[in-house]
Amino acid sequence: MDLKKYIRIIPDFPKEGIRFKDITPLLGDGKAFKHAINLLAEKIKGKEIDLIVGPEARGFVIGGPLAYKLECGFVPVRKKGKLPGETVNATYVLEYGKDALEIHKDAIKPGQKVFITDDLLATGGTMKTTIELVERLGGQVVGLGFFIELTYLEGRNSLTGYDVISLLKY
Amino acid sequence: MDLKKYIRIIPDFPKEGIRFKDITPLLGDGKAFKHAINLLAEKIKGKEIDLIVGPEARGFVIGGPLAYKLECGFVPVRKKGKLPGETVNATYVLEYGKDALEIHKDAIKPGQKVFITDDLLATGGTMKTTIELVERLGGQVVGLGFFIELTYLEGRNSLTGYDVISLLKY
Repeated sequence: MDLKKYIRIIPDFPKEGIRFKDITPLLGDGKAFKHAINLLAEKIKGKEIDLIVGPEARGFVIGGPLAYKLECGFVPVRKKGKLPGETVNATYVLEYGKDALEIHKDAIKPGQKVFITDDLLATGGTMKTTIELVERLGGQVVGLGFFIELTYLEGRNSLTGYDVISLLKY
Repeated sequence: MDLKKYIRIIPDFPKEGIRFKDITPLLGDGKAFKHAINLLAEKIKGKEIDLIVGPEARGFVIGGPLAYKLECGFVPVRKKGKLPGETVNATYVLEYGKDALEIHKDAIKPGQKVFITDDLLATGGTMKTTIELVERLGGQVVGLGFFIELTYLEGRNSLTGYDVISLLKY
């Protein structure tokens, strides 16, 4: 199955000059969505995984079914103020200003093996912040999985030392 | 399996007097999460469903695996400005002010059978807005599914005519 057929390019979103890779046609097709999740699961077969972690919000759409498939727990990483329990947080730099991501303090036990997933690897900023949160709780990051990798942004280079897996490269 | 054991009550979140039902311990336990999704799937067995729709962001965590399990497409409903393609939107009233939800115009074809899911049924405001979006695209809502229903808020009464399914009642 050619999953790239289900990715739609939207010019000038969220701003001029960016050719946004829209995964909603892939999500909206039951067979393609299932195939993509199964493919990601296939690529991490053999890894010992206790928890899937995904950043808000598209990371939830991939992390949820992957956790279901692997019968792992799912841990959400959210924007500031969204998680109800005690959290740790980390800020990351955006083009204009900063934003913060949070994780529940008790979501990961030291030594638990964590696979982190999101829809798209661009510069790697969100992912680096998510890794930081997982590791501060003592989690061991066993890999990072994406539906899409924008290779020309070289996000992978900012994630050296981690096993980076992507289904579709642009 | 007693799923209520995996729901954590957080007092005074997001504001004083509210006893927030936190589903993250349920999500974080692989067996409990899988069981909850399977239970929801069991309760809608026999329904013809083309698409699962879920509102941002917790609706993604439930809608994603449910779509995976049923091999349906998943359609995200998002806060204003988050979806890259052409959208229709609807506003809903919050305690202070208004907010808007959006759906991609081409996400649902007229006549498609849609099951909508979210983590929690409170007053039903988010759900009513989501139904409005689905129906404006010509989708046929065949049911609404929640992990949790706050029965004392009587959200169900604002959703008459729809098949409301919830796993846990408070």
